[in-house]
Amino acid sequence: MNKLIGTTLTILILTVGLCYAQTTQLPPDSQPATSNVRGAAYPRITSDLRAIFQVKAPDAQKIQLMLGKTFDMVKDEKGIWSFTTDPLVPGFHYYFLIVDGVQVSDPASESYFGWGKMSSGIEVPEAGVSYYSLKNIPHGDVRQKWYFSNTTQAWRRCFVYCPPDYNSNLNKKYPVLYLQHGSGEDERGWSVQGKADIILDNLIAEGNAFPMIIVMDQGYATRAGAPAPVPGQQPSGPSAFEEVVIKDLIPFIDSNFRTLSDREHRAMAGLSMGGMQTIQITMSNLDKFAYIGGFSGAGRFSGAGLDVNKDYNGVLADAQIFNNKVKLLWIGIGSAEPQNMYKAVNGFHLSLEKAGIKHVYYESPGTDHEWLTWRRSLNEFAPLLFR
Amino acid sequence: MNKLIGTTLTILILTVGLCYAQTTQLPPDSQPATSNVRGAAYPRITSDLRAIFQVKAPDAQKIQLMLGKTFDMVKDEKGIWSFTTDPLVPGFHYYFLIVDGVQVSDPASESYFGWGKMSSGIEVPEAGVSYYSLKNIPHGDVRQKWYFSNTTQAWRRCFVYCPPDYNSNLNKKYPVLYLQHGSGEDERGWSVQGKADIILDNLIAEGNAFPMIIVMDQGYATRAGAPAPVPGQQPSGPSAFEEVVIKDLIPFIDSNFRTLSDREHRAMAGLSMGGMQTIQITMSNLDKFAYIGGFSGAGRFSGAGLDVNKDYNGVLADAQIFNNKVKLLWIGIGSAEPQNMYKAVNGFHLSLEKAGIKHVYYESPGTDHEWLTWRRSLNEFAPLLFR
Repeated sequence: MNKLIGTTLTILILTVGLCYAQTTQLPPDSQPATSNVRGAAYPRITSDLRAIFQVKAPDAQKIQLMLGKTFDMVKDEKGIWSFTTDPLVPGFHYYFLIVDGVQVSDPASESYFGWGKMSSGIEVPEAGVSYYSLKNIPHGDVRQKWYFSNTTQAWRRCFVYCPPDYNSNLNKKYPVLYLQHGSGEDERGWSVQGKADIILDNLIAEGNAFPMIIVMDQGYATRAGAPAPVPGQQPSGPSAFEEVVIKDLIPFIDSNFRTLSDREHRAMAGLSMGGMQTIQITMSNLDKFAYIGGFSGAGRFSGAGLDVNKDYNGVLADAQIFNNKVKLLWIGIGSAEPQNMYKAVNGFHLSLEKAGIKHVYYESPGTDHEWLTWRRSLNEFAPLLFR
Repeated sequence: MNKLIGTTLTILILTVGLCYAQTTQLPPDSQPATSNVRGAAYPRITSDLRAIFQVKAPDAQKIQLMLGKTFDMVKDEKGIWSFTTDPLVPGFHYYFLIVDGVQVSDPASESYFGWGKMSSGIEVPEAGVSYYSLKNIPHGDVRQKWYFSNTTQAWRRCFVYCPPDYNSNLNKKYPVLYLQHGSGEDERGWSVQGKADIILDNLIAEGNAFPMIIVMDQGYATRAGAPAPVPGQQPSGPSAFEEVVIKDLIPFIDSNFRTLSDREHRAMAGLSMGGMQTIQITMSNLDKFAYIGGFSGAGRFSGAGLDVNKDYNGVLADAQIFNNKVKLLWIGIGSAEPQNMYKAVNGFHLSLEKAGIKHVYYESPGTDHEWLTWRRSLNEFAPLLFR
């Protein structure tokens, strides 16, 4: 039953054969994407940032590429399907193949947890920008930790970034940023798609960020005994995730890492759904957080104006009290995000401004609701923490 | 171009719709596999360990399941394709879907790096066995570390397991096991598919293994300037990987972790290709390793007998010298592995026995060339280290 081995040679030959088939006539002025699996010649990126996709599938009737929009790939006489995009915005983009109607990930690329499943991703290089590139500087690490949640009565996994000097400076304690992924993603998002560890290593090496711990947890939680959540759907009401963060996660982190555990040394931020969770959780727990960040998901997406007297239990009602208490409220959005998202975040910013609530507002030039917006957001936000 | 958002709602509705379609008539006496993505109702495992697979694909002409052998899935009037396996051996099995001839991973399952790409995997529960289950005991962590290799002139990623007391016992130094994945896999294999951290946490909690660091690196390397390796193909001659291990990785680990850095506190083991690499590297560097493990890949696969006077530069020629020098030589194989693999490892064992070379030989009952063989191998091997 489990004799995959019996087919090993066949697969290896097919794989190698596929590579050769693909590499015989490589388009000039192009390179394999860095997000490809080892040895895959496609997808390729041209010097003007077009991506070229290829799939060998002589028996398929129709293959489409889903990268923002959906494009029909074109089959040649050898059964190889191809598509070349227009020039792409740099950064990380999710994509899928649709093979005769079935949406799947591309075997030639790494897969990343997004859209509620393992999704393909492509990294498009960004000229002249190196804040998320590996450099010859001291590096921290990202640690996988298991903890038992009383709220969910189950084991949960989180990832914890420890800064470069965490292992050498053994008496030093560190502030903590809780950093959340978006809808359909999970606790892997920020260190894999987001390159959060590399961004922080670079900021710290340049003296632009205070060395900090970053905790990346899964933004989905179900109270023990409650029905399972529907993928992609946000929890409603006071969330089980808030209870996990406050009652399970923070105590776990504070007892297992050398943290500064007062509110002045604790921040929370998140992207999209994680940004909305951040605002909800921090506003309800200002005794625990002094720094707040919402990346492409800060306020309400309904478009309704902020009512400072009612929303968030009225903590925004007295701007002076709020401004004294909260050291940083940071809100960001990509300038090319869909209008409803842009308006919601920008509208929240305008409402805060009108109410006299101190905050930083950032727009990422030319980026959509996508990871480059959030890498930039982290790169802008982190330097302002714990100062 | 990158407006995936425009299709967000469509996808969420499709996803949710798919879940509902699938969950309306769930087969009795079955549970979703623990390797499924969040909320996926299929694949399911029945109480007699059959796996039930489902894919919604009204427009596909043919869908097959590749799990050891290749099986045709059957389409119903709603366009849902299904297949139920015979009872499966417990543990972790790679699998694929073949959609109209294109081999892809199943969107309903987690993907794992194997077979040179992101592959689906299914976890089949093992009754009465808990050595790889999370328990309420002290847990270590797995750390992602970046290091620059002079050999490859590139950044490499490794994962490092640190035992539970590593962070509390700050003056303690630890022995190190270098643990390698198999062909087509990468540095993620042992902590994800292998659950090496959980196995060690359990062994250490029970007092059955000496607390140790485990380093999991990628077994592929290309010397700077050399052509890229072909996926799945093993390097020939003195490998670049050996140079990485000896000149780059060990010095990096010894200078970044609290290690005991003499040979008596350094082990190497690996599975399949990683086992063969282990034997090759340790035999050539007995001044650096005192403990050696080959899991389903120890000797030569050619079937030729071992020549103790010539092979491995003759280090086996004098059994007494070798037996005094090497504290443990451990060789394992699954009893259900393909005959060529079984014979190669078992034949290596018989050759060693004949030559008077002390070693431990283990057969994993009923398991194939697959991760349950290697989880068991680690669980048997680790307790014998550093005693």
